[in-house]
Amino acid sequence: MSDNKIEEIQELDQSRVLQSWSRQKNKRNNIIIKSQGVKFTDQKGREYYDMSSQLVYANLGHKHPKMLEAFNQLSGLEIVATGFASSSKSELAEKIIDVAPSNMKKVYFTMAGAEANEHAIKIARMVTGKHKILSRYRSYHGSTFGAGNLSGESRRFQVEPGLPGFIKFKTPYLYREKLTFSDELDYTNYLLSELDKQIQFEGPEDIAAIFIEPIPGSNGVLLPPEGYLTGLSTLCKRYDILLICDEVMSGFGRTGKWFAVDHFNVQPDIITFAKGVTAGYLPLGGVIVSDRIAEYFDENVLMTGSTYSGHAMACHMGCAALNVYHQEEIISHVQEMESVINSRLEKLKEYKYVGDVRNIGLFSAIELVKDKQTKEPIIDYGQDYGKDLQGHMSTLLACLLDKGFYTYSHESCIFISPPLTITKEEIDSAFDLLELGLTQFILDHPSLT
Amino acid sequence: MSDNKIEEIQELDQSRVLQSWSRQKNKRNNIIIKSQGVKFTDQKGREYYDMSSQLVYANLGHKHPKMLEAFNQLSGLEIVATGFASSSKSELAEKIIDVAPSNMKKVYFTMAGAEANEHAIKIARMVTGKHKILSRYRSYHGSTFGAGNLSGESRRFQVEPGLPGFIKFKTPYLYREKLTFSDELDYTNYLLSELDKQIQFEGPEDIAAIFIEPIPGSNGVLLPPEGYLTGLSTLCKRYDILLICDEVMSGFGRTGKWFAVDHFNVQPDIITFAKGVTAGYLPLGGVIVSDRIAEYFDENVLMTGSTYSGHAMACHMGCAALNVYHQEEIISHVQEMESVINSRLEKLKEYKYVGDVRNIGLFSAIELVKDKQTKEPIIDYGQDYGKDLQGHMSTLLACLLDKGFYTYSHESCIFISPPLTITKEEIDSAFDLLELGLTQFILDHPSLT
Ligand SMILES: Cc1ncc(COP(=O)(O)O)c(C=O)c1O
Ligand SMILES: Cc1ncc(COP(=O)(O)O)c(C=O)c1O
Repeated sequence: MSDNKIEEIQELDQSRVLQSWSRQKNKRNNIIIKSQGVKFTDQKGREYYDMSSQLVYANLGHKHPKMLEAFNQLSGLEIVATGFASSSKSELAEKIIDVAPSNMKKVYFTMAGAEANEHAIKIARMVTGKHKILSRYRSYHGSTFGAGNLSGESRRFQVEPGLPGFIKFKTPYLYREKLTFSDELDYTNYLLSELDKQIQFEGPEDIAAIFIEPIPGSNGVLLPPEGYLTGLSTLCKRYDILLICDEVMSGFGRTGKWFAVDHFNVQPDIITFAKGVTAGYLPLGGVIVSDRIAEYFDENVLMTGSTYSGHAMACHMGCAALNVYHQEEIISHVQEMESVINSRLEKLKEYKYVGDVRNIGLFSAIELVKDKQTKEPIIDYGQDYGKDLQGHMSTLLACLLDKGFYTYSHESCIFISPPLTITKEEIDSAFDLLELGLTQFILDHPSLT
Repeated sequence: MSDNKIEEIQELDQSRVLQSWSRQKNKRNNIIIKSQGVKFTDQKGREYYDMSSQLVYANLGHKHPKMLEAFNQLSGLEIVATGFASSSKSELAEKIIDVAPSNMKKVYFTMAGAEANEHAIKIARMVTGKHKILSRYRSYHGSTFGAGNLSGESRRFQVEPGLPGFIKFKTPYLYREKLTFSDELDYTNYLLSELDKQIQFEGPEDIAAIFIEPIPGSNGVLLPPEGYLTGLSTLCKRYDILLICDEVMSGFGRTGKWFAVDHFNVQPDIITFAKGVTAGYLPLGGVIVSDRIAEYFDENVLMTGSTYSGHAMACHMGCAALNVYHQEEIISHVQEMESVINSRLEKLKEYKYVGDVRNIGLFSAIELVKDKQTKEPIIDYGQDYGKDLQGHMSTLLACLLDKGFYTYSHESCIFISPPLTITKEEIDSAFDLLELGLTQFILDHPSLT
């Protein structure tokens, strides 16, 4: 790409495009001019490991030949309104149900994750006839009004004053728990008994659903303590509350299973998904509902919809992606890579400022602290948008980027969620760069205030 | 396509896909197996004129060679997160600003229409620091919680109890106005003075924005009376309220101008769009903001975002579509076709049960009544979802379909919004079929109760 062309793209990007979650001034975005597998090259010719799969969606890596082939088939497809059946929509729905928990029956297609959660809330209210919706602090479910009101963090504030009947409870987070517990089960029992009380206070007969990210992603890959999800599911059943799992980030192999809930032997009533379903090659999302919910809409009108629900081209790319997941046995590959990444993460704990590391499959977070004893977070809560753009986290990210390690952060965590196709050798090389960057940061910052 | 394949697609569609706005039982959807230009063929080999451009998005018709070519270029593009610049995103933003009203400055990209409105609400609140949002009865803005709460019709009920601060006012609708007015201007003055009072009652210092479909689409192509939009714009300026125009349906040439507001010499603060921008070849939508709003976010963080904002592939198809709009001079073609369709619509008024016809560009509605004197609607309000699926409107649509005329209805209106590439001859042939179908319906129903 010529220098003039690069200049022009960046110039228009700055003058014509409104950028998410940013102050716009002086925001000069890089351009990816080449990519392959787990790596990409920017306009300066520098190569990076894409250690976040862009925004945790490029699960099959860049320029996967099968996905490029699928692009070339799009011109043979028909543009059809939602009211028509199409081969790619039917096939993808079947492929998804095939890998979803066994109680799942039907798919409602959306364009992305937030929208999936929007429709899931509506479906839960229709089916149950109840209106309250519980979700958790330290969760992110999207930035539209319904999904945003589910979210239990600062990205919710812009959709407030919020929807009535949206209530929050606490996400397990043992690393930052002030109370002490004898073991994980003890912690689980405490949390569930607290939640049980909260359900009583809110009135179970008014609660339609509990929404969770089974493993919260952008809030730090917070692995649930032993028995938690099973216990939560039992609680939901006891009070006839739907359990809705947002697997927008954790779905489609990210954790080493098709869905994160598969680790815990839990059958939710609804699963929402996006990202991994097409591995980002086209936007797509959706809501998977159980047989019981599907049956409800046999006789009752599903009062929701959107123009592009089940768009044939997007579904076609979903089919192509799922074929690759199967043919390349991505899920078992992730299981194999888990121990590779775990041992590299474990080693990081020796570094100054690394408070905690957490991983499942290829879904991991490194939590940074100013002081390992006090566990004081490296930046204050809610500081990473706007107020603290020049803070320690962005300096650290810049150090990593400088070594060729690309990823993103949220609050005091940096995320490592590479394409699921990554090899052992690539993990090792990327982590070598990560350690170089981290070392640089520590050298530059002998102490933090 | 083999009979077995057809059977399999329909069977999976029914058993695995949750269908919008429907009772699912016995819903066997047709398949489009071939399409070209303004026509498509279903699995029974029957050919239809696509007189609604599917859901008012296939503006460039089916299988446009330039759009198919664009599909084949997708494999050369990079999958990039929103934080990167890309050539297709930059270019499309520039192309959109190029055809938008002259005060427009930047584009925020979304996947579809509802989502565009969600972000527009948030932007309006951020920029103004005010929280109330006014919108109109007889409007549809999408089915997610924010967009749904804007909507002034029965598809809103499923997102209620709704968001605080969302207030409705009345859409001009002279055909159904009980009061009498000396002329359109008189009606306009009455409406605007009523709105002015309502703004006082709500407190202008708390009102962030007024959302309108400049020409409400699915609520019946309700053309505003003379002077209305200019007056509304003046009112907004007086009270420092943002004017936001939802042009998801009316944008990109549908009305014979790039945007419907262009007919009225009005410069809104924000325009939302979707559908026509890619002519449906891929899902895409967005929010166009004025220079004043763009500037606000130079210094202030835009606190909204979504994973696929500005997806390179979708933007690429947008660029391709805009090139076709320009190269084939679609806008002036629509202006030429307007009189063709107008004269055919005028003729329909002679038919029993045709109460009113309305058109601008290639955006028209036929309003059906039981009795032309009393103007009693052919079906009761709110009856077209669920309760009255077997009612007169679906019978009428079935009569049209039987003659080879495909479109959709909402409440007591059927819509005619063909691909903008339609020729005079095609309009005439399609309307001949429409008249045949209408005649059949009237013969079958000598009176309606
Ligand atoms: C768990 C989860 N849910 C929902 C969303 C929102 O998805 P989208 O940005 O596609 O609307 C995200 C985005 O990162 C997510 O991580
Ligand atoms: C005027 C208007 N706004 C918004 C929408 C919602 O768009 P989408 O279905 O793409 O979310 C529609 C859909 O028909 C519409 O007509």
